[in-house]
Parts: sequence; structure tokens; C-alpha cells
Amino acid sequence: MSLLVTGSIGLDTVETPQGRVENVLGGSAIYFALAAAQFVPVRLVGAVGEDFDPRLLDPLRDKPIDLRGIEMRAGSRTFRWHGRYQGAMNEAQTLRTELNVLAEHAAALPPEFSDSRFVFLANTHPALQRDFASKLPQAVLVVCDTMNLWIEQERPALERLLSQVHGLVLNDAEARALSGCAHLVGAGRKILKLGPRFVIIKKGEHGSLLVSDDGLAAIPAYPTENIVDPTGCGDSFAGAVMGYLASQGRWDFPTLKAAMARGAAVASITLESFSIDALACCRPAEIERRLTVLRELCRFD
Amino acid sequence: MSLLVTGSIGLDTVETPQGRVENVLGGSAIYFALAAAQFVPVRLVGAVGEDFDPRLLDPLRDKPIDLRGIEMRAGSRTFRWHGRYQGAMNEAQTLRTELNVLAEHAAALPPEFSDSRFVFLANTHPALQRDFASKLPQAVLVVCDTMNLWIEQERPALERLLSQVHGLVLNDAEARALSGCAHLVGAGRKILKLGPRFVIIKKGEHGSLLVSDDGLAAIPAYPTENIVDPTGCGDSFAGAVMGYLASQGRWDFPTLKAAMARGAAVASITLESFSIDALACCRPAEIERRLTVLRELCRFD
Repeated sequence: MSLLVTGSIGLDTVETPQGRVENVLGGSAIYFALAAAQFVPVRLVGAVGEDFDPRLLDPLRDKPIDLRGIEMRAGSRTFRWHGRYQGAMNEAQTLRTELNVLAEHAAALPPEFSDSRFVFLANTHPALQRDFASKLPQAVLVVCDTMNLWIEQERPALERLLSQVHGLVLNDAEARALSGCAHLVGAGRKILKLGPRFVIIKKGEHGSLLVSDDGLAAIPAYPTENIVDPTGCGDSFAGAVMGYLASQGRWDFPTLKAAMARGAAVASITLESFSIDALACCRPAEIERRLTVLRELCRFD
Repeated sequence: MSLLVTGSIGLDTVETPQGRVENVLGGSAIYFALAAAQFVPVRLVGAVGEDFDPRLLDPLRDKPIDLRGIEMRAGSRTFRWHGRYQGAMNEAQTLRTELNVLAEHAAALPPEFSDSRFVFLANTHPALQRDFASKLPQAVLVVCDTMNLWIEQERPALERLLSQVHGLVLNDAEARALSGCAHLVGAGRKILKLGPRFVIIKKGEHGSLLVSDDGLAAIPAYPTENIVDPTGCGDSFAGAVMGYLASQGRWDFPTLKAAMARGAAVASITLESFSIDALACCRPAEIERRLTVLRELCRFD
């Protein structure tokens, strides 16, 4: 099953208690693609500026990731983000954002990707997400992410988008803001009324919650103690979820639960390094080992 | 196996989005005892003042709860607490506390309880907890609770207590404050260094985390959507945990995991009413039903 992601490609400067990195590869589409490629080939759509060094993509080239959808836009600069994590590290403090190429028009969908069946619309303006989805008539599963900016400032556009997607992946603070409901199961139920068939709420170290008409699921986070940099964990989680679903060719309730466990395993690997370093070296056996730990973690007699 | 709890018995006034109750039965020992009595006979030690109407204890009288340790102290007034929950309802805002009888000396241990084997020291000054435990030479499992007040203001006494107990049950904010570590697995590891063999961190709607030298466990919260009043949920959780452990006569790692699941099930019942109303009517079949839901919630292929 073909899986397509459209999202950001960025140059990140990140500070955590473990250190600091400058202008390293980041962006939602990058983390998503590397995570999903553990399970299925991925088509990546996104734009960079002429300041982007193509060698940064080398770690993606030996993976089943189709990079023909990366647009190198002349005269533009690449998206840049500078953030800092402190304390529990479950939320970044943004020190500086340069939207650059992201503030222009969306990256184009290559014609050869237009038959994609599984689609992930990483966070951007909901009208752009909706427009992109409309170009993929063969999609059987369209899932999107969003953020507080759109929840607060582009509510009508976001509601139009949500009425047309199958699934939504977002974090706990976003779910509370979108639903107006502090309790997350209740928040998920309210979001379902906006249209999606399922909502996955990412809760950082508390794991993830699935709310759908077919039931509820709670998958714990993998309890890594080697916490280096949370950047990209949410996108890695979504990438592994969508990659696993596409590899199975279905998204029924038990497959969604299994996919969330893969998301937890892969996100915990991303957490253990700056940028994509750990994720790009991740081996299937390590994911399997973490899945075994996750199964045991919450099994009881 | 005999299970003893010492803790508060109080008259609570509670406001939540679902309503308000005045001077209803509350206190850690009450919630603990009702929860534990689902699994094993309980011995309750606590003090009330002469303003306490003994009929308030009627819901406990048809349960296997030995009330001979309740001291009715002449000339004293009962502990009173007035709190309010808002939003996510995971933390109460205390509007008023009257310590009353709790500010005097501790309730006496009846001689017939001195052979108790499983012991829970609900939250009070750590020196009082330690003194109480020293009177129970046959105890094979001593577990305590604590709170931020003692963590911040009575650190040496708390550390002496922790060096002598087998287990600690506390909430996430307390675990972070006690350990100085924002990440909860790391917090648990640091607390183990103070002495306990295991730490159970209660995370409200995110479930609970067990950290011990034998491993980690993460048990989800039962996903009730009928959230009325969180008062006593933590004490009900601890009561069901200790009640189940005492019923099994052991506290090895798999039994602790199973006990935490019982804690989640019973705490969710407490959440569904004000005061002890739902907890006092709880049937074993309902606990079993919720355990089945909890098992499915986090099972994946």
C-alpha cells in the first residue's frame, strides 16, 4: 500500500539539558518518513530553499523513501526552527521560527504520487491540508495533524478539514483546546463529532490514547530513560502508526492499536538522540524488542 | 493476611462541575478501607471528634472493616476539608482545612491490631508514620503515602521514614518534587535510592506507574466518562492495591502489577460519585468487568 506524507522539512537548532545542536535536519515530513519507512515505502512531499544542503538527505537515501516530491525552490530559504526543552521536556519553548518557504505556496504533488492510498497531512494551515487531500482521489485513509495556532485562529477551516479526514493525530493540549474538554476521553469523543472516525491523542511520557466509535485504547510510552531530544517524537509516532497501517493495508480497530504500539516504540528511539541520528539507524529487531517490553509493561493477571 | 490502615477520617465539603456536597464522610482511611475491604478484612485506625455522627460510618459496618481502632476523642473536633475541582480535575484547590483532631496526637493502635502483617500509613507527618510503623513488629509489608508539605518542609523525617518502608504510593507531582526529576521513570528510580523496594506513581487519568528493582509497569486508568468527584480516588487506589496484595499474601512484581489494575478499577468507581456513595455500593462483578476492559485497553498484536 502506497503511503504519502506532506509536511515540513527544516533546519533545527535545539537546546535540551543534554546539549545543543545547530541547523540539523528536522521537520515533520522527515521524521515521519524515516519512521514510516521501517514498515512500508514512503513518498515524501515538501519544499526547501536554495540554502538547503542536499547532503543532509543522505540518511534517507538508503531507505525506501521516494524523494522526488522534495521541491528545491530557487530564491527561497528553508524553514528554520529554534527551540528549547527544559524540565519534563514534554513541550518545546520556541525561541525563533523562520517560516521562509513554508509561508509561500505548498509543495506540488508529483503526478506519479497522485494514486497514493494512505495519506498523512502533517501540520500546516488546514486549508492547505484540505486542498492537498483533494488531489488524492484514491486515498482510502487520510489522517492529519494540527496545532493550537489553527485551533485558535482558523477554526472554520479546521472544521472543514476534519469533516473530510478519516483520522486525527494530535497532542493532549491540542485535544483539550480543540474540544474544550479537559478530560481526554471526553475530548476525543467531542472531536469525533467533528467528523474523524478516530482520534489518537499523544500524551508524551504517558503514552497515547485512541478514541473511536469502535472503542478506546491506551498504549503506554516506551519507558526509555535516555532522554536526549523530544523533537520529532510526535512525527515519528505518526509515521510509525501510518507506516504500520499501510503495511497491513487496513485501519480497523485492532490494527490501529497495534500501529500505536509501533508508534510508541519508534518515537522512543527518536527521543534518544538529537535530530534523526538514532531514528535513521533504527533496526527492526530493536523495534521488536521494544514492542515486547511494551506488551509486558501493561500486562497483568 | 491482616491489613491495617491508619489515616484521616474527615468531614468533606466538595465542589466539582457536577455539584456540591457538604460535610460528607471522607478521609484517606475511609476511602482506603472501603476499597481494600473488596479483597480482604481491614483494620482501621483513626480519630474523630465529638462532633462526628457515628451513623456516618453505617456504610462501613456491613463490610469486613474492623472499626475498633476509631477513637472518638472528647473535646476535639473532626478533621474538615473544603475543596474544589475544576477543569481536568486532577488536582483539588483547597479552600479551607481544619486539622482539628489531626493536629493533636495520633490515634492509638489497639493492642489487638499489633500483629498486623500488611500496613498502610496514609499521609500524615512522616515522624508519626514512622512511630506508628515501629509498633507493628510483625509487618511484612509497610507502604506509605506522603504529600508536598512534608517533601518541602520535613525532608529529613521523610527520608528516615522512606529508609524503613517497603513501598511508597504518591502522585506524579509529589514524585517530581521528592526526586527533583521531571521524568517519572527517572523520578521513581531516584526515590528507590531513598530506601523503598517499590514506588507506585499515581497519574490520574494517565494511570499509574510502578518502578521497582524488578522492573517497570504502566497500568492505564479505567476510562470512565462519568467523572463526578475525584476526592478519595488516590486513597481508593491504594486501598485496592493493598487489599489485593494482602489477599494474595505476597507483593512480588507480578502481584504488584495485578494489584495496580485492581486499584485502577476501584478508583474509577470512587470517581463516579461524591463521597463514598459509589464505592460503598461497589460489587465484585463490577470490578471484574472493569478489569476486563483494562486488559483489552492496552492489549495489542
